[in-house]
Amino acid sequence: MTTAEQEIRADLRIQMRRLGQSARAAAAVLARTGTAAKNHALERAAASLRARQAEVLHANARDLDAAGALGLSQAMLDRLTLNPDRIEAMARGLEEIVALPDPVGSVIADWDRPSGLRIQRVRVPLGVIGIIYESRPNVTADAGALCLKSGNAVILRGGSEAIHSNAAIHACLLDGLRAAELPETAIQRVPTQDREAVGILLRDMAEFVDVIVPRGGKRLIARVQEDARVPVMGHLEGICHTYIHSGADLEMARRVTLNAKMRRTGICGATETVLVDRAIADSHLCAIVADLIDAGCEVRGDDRTQQCDSRVRAATAEDWGHEFLDSIVAIRVVDDIDTALEHIRRYGSGHTEAIITDDSAAAERFLSELDSAILMHNVSTQYADGGEFGLGAEIGIATGRVHARGPVGAEQLTSYKYLVRGSGQARP
Amino acid sequence: MTTAEQEIRADLRIQMRRLGQSARAAAAVLARTGTAAKNHALERAAASLRARQAEVLHANARDLDAAGALGLSQAMLDRLTLNPDRIEAMARGLEEIVALPDPVGSVIADWDRPSGLRIQRVRVPLGVIGIIYESRPNVTADAGALCLKSGNAVILRGGSEAIHSNAAIHACLLDGLRAAELPETAIQRVPTQDREAVGILLRDMAEFVDVIVPRGGKRLIARVQEDARVPVMGHLEGICHTYIHSGADLEMARRVTLNAKMRRTGICGATETVLVDRAIADSHLCAIVADLIDAGCEVRGDDRTQQCDSRVRAATAEDWGHEFLDSIVAIRVVDDIDTALEHIRRYGSGHTEAIITDDSAAAERFLSELDSAILMHNVSTQYADGGEFGLGAEIGIATGRVHARGPVGAEQLTSYKYLVRGSGQARP
Repeated sequence: MTTAEQEIRADLRIQMRRLGQSARAAAAVLARTGTAAKNHALERAAASLRARQAEVLHANARDLDAAGALGLSQAMLDRLTLNPDRIEAMARGLEEIVALPDPVGSVIADWDRPSGLRIQRVRVPLGVIGIIYESRPNVTADAGALCLKSGNAVILRGGSEAIHSNAAIHACLLDGLRAAELPETAIQRVPTQDREAVGILLRDMAEFVDVIVPRGGKRLIARVQEDARVPVMGHLEGICHTYIHSGADLEMARRVTLNAKMRRTGICGATETVLVDRAIADSHLCAIVADLIDAGCEVRGDDRTQQCDSRVRAATAEDWGHEFLDSIVAIRVVDDIDTALEHIRRYGSGHTEAIITDDSAAAERFLSELDSAILMHNVSTQYADGGEFGLGAEIGIATGRVHARGPVGAEQLTSYKYLVRGSGQARP
Repeated sequence: MTTAEQEIRADLRIQMRRLGQSARAAAAVLARTGTAAKNHALERAAASLRARQAEVLHANARDLDAAGALGLSQAMLDRLTLNPDRIEAMARGLEEIVALPDPVGSVIADWDRPSGLRIQRVRVPLGVIGIIYESRPNVTADAGALCLKSGNAVILRGGSEAIHSNAAIHACLLDGLRAAELPETAIQRVPTQDREAVGILLRDMAEFVDVIVPRGGKRLIARVQEDARVPVMGHLEGICHTYIHSGADLEMARRVTLNAKMRRTGICGATETVLVDRAIADSHLCAIVADLIDAGCEVRGDDRTQQCDSRVRAATAEDWGHEFLDSIVAIRVVDDIDTALEHIRRYGSGHTEAIITDDSAAAERFLSELDSAILMHNVSTQYADGGEFGLGAEIGIATGRVHARGPVGAEQLTSYKYLVRGSGQARP
């Protein structure tokens, strides 16, 4: 490293630590901010998103222009693209967060002890949350707003492909904070795309950051877990499986599988691999393959699946456990439920898996023996969503085991403390 | 490093990874083990502790012999020492864990959605837990038993000063596992005191360990947080404060403070620093100082505190925020509640703090503005204990913000998953 490079690194470190210090200071303010001020900021941010729509679209156009040079896939381009409908959806998303109950200060439990002590468990914010995410710019609004609602300061680090869109959306969130007279440092963006900034955030800011939420592929999560010196609430990719058990109703299996794969291919709850019992290959497998191909899906299958239709391509080893996020599916025939469970344990990412069957014993085995965050019986994996669960907006679906698992909304972004009230108790 | 040393390190790595693999395999068995078998193992372990009491005492005597050479303090020696009463208490501790409800499989929440989906949140074990702890050998029994009850495999790493005691207690736990036909690798000890083994456990075993629970001083926790590549549920030392506010009842302040400091000085909930409002220094401060000195406590105070009694030693900068775990207390006079809050934020470890006052507004400020795991009003900090909270046995008091906070018992050693049951729902 040259002296000039070393100086740039040192400057970056100072800049990042200032970011952390001001986030910590904002968190202290937010922890005592009432619901009304937080909601006011979110309402004004929604209004600002609508008022500044042209600006946001202009910024997005710059990102899309650059995206061509980056060689992004069609699916990634779709995730990156904003339009008036999507901006309106983002604004409505903020208003939905306004309507959510404020988790902070709520009493989770409250009980009396024989000693005369009254004990309460009360929700408090986590503190400062660092969010590292890829592509979709709406995460900037959703994550910023959820952290604010739950009383946390947040440091956002989006992907470089969405840098202008993220900056424009962030500006609207700042409008909201200013209108509510809350610290602008409550929602900050890492001010540079220098990859070293992420390293500093993960390694050198433990005193300023309480938890890191990475959202993205295995490579991102692995890097975060390797480097982070603070707790990580991982949002791994959604390598979701739909397993058609021999006891599946044909019509239901066809309808649910088509929906699980094709309703929206770009969300983490989209099914990426379909497993089908050999006993029903003739009936169910070939019908499902035909449905998917008719709907424009590319099918990559094992030998048996290729026998259904000449348009099925041979699946390669890389197709199992791959998150396509596109109109592509991998299909494998399995001998029985044991092989299906084994396949899912080996290739899954711990996100969401579904079994389609009328055999309730098989369904209960699937639900109890697998250990993903979400397990479904006779349901499309596209239902893996905080809104559909009735939990409100979410940052994503956590695939780790510690703290929160499954949909992470405002409530999952809190911790708690115990309040113990007595009348002079000394312990015997 | 010589070639011989490198070979030893490589061997250690292989040995540790085998430990991890067998823990992972045991965890898969435990996740599906019913309550009866787990309880049977714990009952038989308790019986074995009683039957093998002489052996355990003999092992403890070896540790105590060696402790002289290590120059342990009287307080640390006390924590290390076992006797028939303490072994009986350990056995009864295991039986209390038998009596606790089994958290695994319990339905935390259960609701229906307009879509017709039925959603359940169900407790599952965390998986494999690594526990790194210092001195007290009873942690071996408590932590091993709590992990087993909550369906987790555990890898224990106790302090070298208790190595023989820990091995003897571990042997009793293995008797229990064998009697219940559970894998012996459900509760394992790191087989060497080589410090590098801890490094391997923290850095190189992320695929085998789901969470690390460190229990000990700031140095241990800092090392774990620096090295760990898996989530950490930190149990920092208990630097507990008792603050005597100007509105405190004199008799209550004296009684509670004496208890908070002196009932048992070696537990993490013992008060280490007392803060007293200047306005009540003449009345309350001097009475409290006299009580403590009469009870055999060494008082280290600021200038004002030294005026109360010539036997008060001058407190040094190191005495604030120090965990004495002994009959020593630091006392400081503060101008008002703001100074008290500031002192606690600066020197506390986020464990437990108490305010003594009849002024309910001051008490509510203390409870809401401080952010330790446990905040008390008119209660001795010695009540900071899972048993006293009615939560059952505990591994310790977590001082982090992620996952569990405060007393960590069987329930806090679990995660959860969502089960979603439908009738063929495809998402619109």
